Amino acid sequence: MGSWEDNVRKVVPYVPGEQPNQPDMIKLNTNENPYPPAPGVQKALSAMDAGQMRLYPDPASADLVHALADHYQVSPSQIFVGVGSDDVISMAFLTFFHGKKPVLFPDITYSFYEVWADVYRIPYRTIPLDDQFRICPEDYTLENGGIIFPNPNAPTGAAMNPEGVEQIIRQNPDSVVIVDEAYVDFGTASALPLLKKYDNLLVVQTFSKSRSMAGMRIGFAIGNEKLIRFMQDVKYSVNSYTMNRPSIFLGKAALQDDIYFRNTTRKIIETREWAKDELRKRGFHFADSKANFLFASHETVSAVKIFEGLRKRHIYVRYFNRPRIDNYLRITIGTKEQMQALFDALDEILR
Amino acid sequence: MGSWEDNVRKVVPYVPGEQPNQPDMIKLNTNENPYPPAPGVQKALSAMDAGQMRLYPDPASADLVHALADHYQVSPSQIFVGVGSDDVISMAFLTFFHGKKPVLFPDITYSFYEVWADVYRIPYRTIPLDDQFRICPEDYTLENGGIIFPNPNAPTGAAMNPEGVEQIIRQNPDSVVIVDEAYVDFGTASALPLLKKYDNLLVVQTFSKSRSMAGMRIGFAIGNEKLIRFMQDVKYSVNSYTMNRPSIFLGKAALQDDIYFRNTTRKIIETREWAKDELRKRGFHFADSKANFLFASHETVSAVKIFEGLRKRHIYVRYFNRPRIDNYLRITIGTKEQMQALFDALDEILR
Repeated sequence: MGSWEDNVRKVVPYVPGEQPNQPDMIKLNTNENPYPPAPGVQKALSAMDAGQMRLYPDPASADLVHALADHYQVSPSQIFVGVGSDDVISMAFLTFFHGKKPVLFPDITYSFYEVWADVYRIPYRTIPLDDQFRICPEDYTLENGGIIFPNPNAPTGAAMNPEGVEQIIRQNPDSVVIVDEAYVDFGTASALPLLKKYDNLLVVQTFSKSRSMAGMRIGFAIGNEKLIRFMQDVKYSVNSYTMNRPSIFLGKAALQDDIYFRNTTRKIIETREWAKDELRKRGFHFADSKANFLFASHETVSAVKIFEGLRKRHIYVRYFNRPRIDNYLRITIGTKEQMQALFDALDEILR
Repeated sequence: MGSWEDNVRKVVPYVPGEQPNQPDMIKLNTNENPYPPAPGVQKALSAMDAGQMRLYPDPASADLVHALADHYQVSPSQIFVGVGSDDVISMAFLTFFHGKKPVLFPDITYSFYEVWADVYRIPYRTIPLDDQFRICPEDYTLENGGIIFPNPNAPTGAAMNPEGVEQIIRQNPDSVVIVDEAYVDFGTASALPLLKKYDNLLVVQTFSKSRSMAGMRIGFAIGNEKLIRFMQDVKYSVNSYTMNRPSIFLGKAALQDDIYFRNTTRKIIETREWAKDELRKRGFHFADSKANFLFASHETVSAVKIFEGLRKRHIYVRYFNRPRIDNYLRITIGTKEQMQALFDALDEILR
């Protein structure tokens, strides 16, 4: 064996969450939407012609970008699309976090921020949430080379108010501030209106949660034109054709049906609020989630025990073995029926 | 405006080749396959259920990986899949070319190698092709941190014999050697059999050309398990879910119909050989291409003039304004009818 290994970029391998695949399972572990995509998506899928697949997709994904621009009332030149919001944020890290000062993000947050910083050798510093798992805007005044946080935060589900978000952006005019709004459609105010006031803001959203399209891998960022152009330049230097034809075509179709979108997100919000009551009754406490999941801890029974008990009953939730949160479970909001099955199982486990 | 721009990774923006979209055009500019994907792909597409799109795809793309493993008679752990071979090679650059010594590749080759090296800040050195546009294995003995070349080469189409490829790999046991076989199915011997002898070899192929699926973005690499594991570790630190559900499902379907695959590649090879005669008759010369394109220069009329003349007639070929090749046109092999239309147009332009 030669010494080619010396030149290898070695990273601590990130292990994606398990994707169990059992016919009778209740899958509440990866924040998927329990409802199918809008009916127009099936129609679009059925209309697709495999013959077109021989041709490259449009590298600019113009059809999808224009549909997003119409929907969010911004210019197409303010939109960047990618293979899920992971691709979009990874590209933003590579583009905007290229300085020597540390990038700031919360200590309890989306675990990929740390992973991207490691793989791209970006210095970073985590800022602890307060005792109630809240992001405190006044903590984000340290010298930094960029800031990213989700709103609502993951895996806590806690949302910051618009004033708090604006404070962080205003305090840091020399940094790009990325607000990761993967879960924003379940009841949090978006930072999008702030784009008119701040040129250092990048808002990232996804089709994976509220639009029921995790399987299609579609994410997007909205920011000022200059910011987006810098991202495009890097993206076109990595892979010009990231969005395949089905993504562009079905993504556009998913945006057309706003009534369906409002109905399904409303149903998930209602189920979430009901689930909060049901969990409270059973001795759980949690931050006031505005996402499509709850991050809950039981007053007497350990998270691991509950996790294992649910798993035995083919109900999958997410457990993170990490400091400060190792007694919590992240429970995706499913249908009412799925949640009832969860509560029934909890009644057995907690008995 | 703040100074956030100081932290931006600024790259020379890569401009992807034009993707014209006119109903009557003849598109011979991006090496797409003139034939549709195998009939099984349309069947698979019609069988897809949009309801499944709400669920994340399998991060390991196991169905596609196993189909590839069966097809190429290797272990699934020897296979890496990505969003087109661009994604695969970009990930290989990030993973394997992490040293301080320059990476080597030909001066006339796939233009993205230079772009990836720039975006990832990888030192590199280009090695000139000889006067007949050939890669000379003995030139690849300089100290290096990795090697990549396409076989057949692009945009020349010239293939290296298996001994030459093996010589480069054997000479460089301390470097990862990537053989980019995007066009290998049109009549070149693959380096895959060498995997049994060398642990520093990575072979990259794509569904975009010979499998008529440019629009789906599916590429893959085959190498020894250790090499693949290093790539997976980096990939899982960038984006765990790169392959969407249609890619995995339709990619697998495309591999099932070997007879269709052989028939369409054979037809393209036949058309290419006929096109060589027709171009020679008209005063063109070119390297002996083994790809689905010809790289041709006319004895008296400039490439730019021919390019513009064809364009006016809605026939698109590719022109590269780069040293040593600025009097050449890269012409994709279309159907016999498309090529006849090209020759008719050339007869008018050269008259």
